[in-house]
Order: sequence, then C-alpha cells, then structure tokens
Amino acid sequence: MGETNIFKVLADSQRREILTMLKNGRLNAGEIADKLQITPAALSYHLKLLKGADLIEEYKEKNYIYYEINTTVFDELIMWVNQFGGKK
Amino acid sequence: MGETNIFKVLADSQRREILTMLKNGRLNAGEIADKLQITPAALSYHLKLLKGADLIEEYKEKNYIYYEINTTVFDELIMWVNQFGGKK
Repeated sequence: MGETNIFKVLADSQRREILTMLKNGRLNAGEIADKLQITPAALSYHLKLLKGADLIEEYKEKNYIYYEINTTVFDELIMWVNQFGGKK
Repeated sequence: MGETNIFKVLADSQRREILTMLKNGRLNAGEIADKLQITPAALSYHLKLLKGADLIEEYKEKNYIYYEINTTVFDELIMWVNQFGGKK
C-alpha cells in the first residue's frame, strides 16, 4: 500500500466524523458544516485532505458541490487491515 | 473509535513493514532489526509507538523479548474501516 498519507488524513477525529456522516449518502459542504459546527475554512481544509487521499470524491450537480465516500480506496484499506486481524 | 493515534502510528511505512513481518508470527527485536536494516535506536522508537497504540504486544521468554500483533485492536480497526467499503 503506497498511500501513506491515508493514515495521516484519518488521524483527525473531525475528518473521521465527516466520513461517518457521508456513510449514509452524499452531502454538500453546507450540510456537513451545519452538522459538524465548524467554520467554512476549517471544513474546506478537511475536505481538501480527504480528497487528496482519495477517501472522498466531489461532484457538481446544479449549483451544489456534493461529497461522497470513495469506496474503492476503502476497499483497498480494508484488504490491508484485514491481514492483521484475528477474526477470519 | 477513540484510538486516534492508531492512525498516526500506522502512517509510517517502516512501522507498517514491522507489522507485515509480525503477521507470520512473533519475532524478537534483533530479528526485526536484521530484516529492516535500521539502527537499534530507530527500531526501539517504532516498537514503542506500536506498543503505545496497542498494535503489538511484547512478552519475555527466557532471555528474549518477543513482539507479536495484537489482533484484538486490529479487529476493532477492521470493523471501523469496514463501514466505509463498497464490497459487502
């Protein structure tokens, strides 16, 4: 696994919280900011890092930018982590 | 998941390499150092962080200290990561 920075990106609890929010479907930045109660600048920094690690993807629809989980990258991470587990 | 620092500890490629080595069974510090080609001081720093995050456990047997994967903590991490995957 070459994506070292995935772990750095996941090391922040607010970024993990954003991922948990997106688990149930796409959200736009405004919706995430409301739920997380952080400033737009802080949110935009977190989203940039999550996108940079390919953990989330963004796409535009009408006037909104939506964010959603990139399950492909999580599937790779799951495979990597699975090799160390005890439950098979 | 409260163990924020698990991800920080996993963010280093040498520490991930140590985990990969231990996947096939316990090793002592000398064996790990030989395979990883790092100084004892650097190894001891990595082992301290891995132990601190409960990713590995150490135990003494005769004159050697052995290290092994703590599968329980990985099982928790697997559960957390699994919620974001696409393959069910």
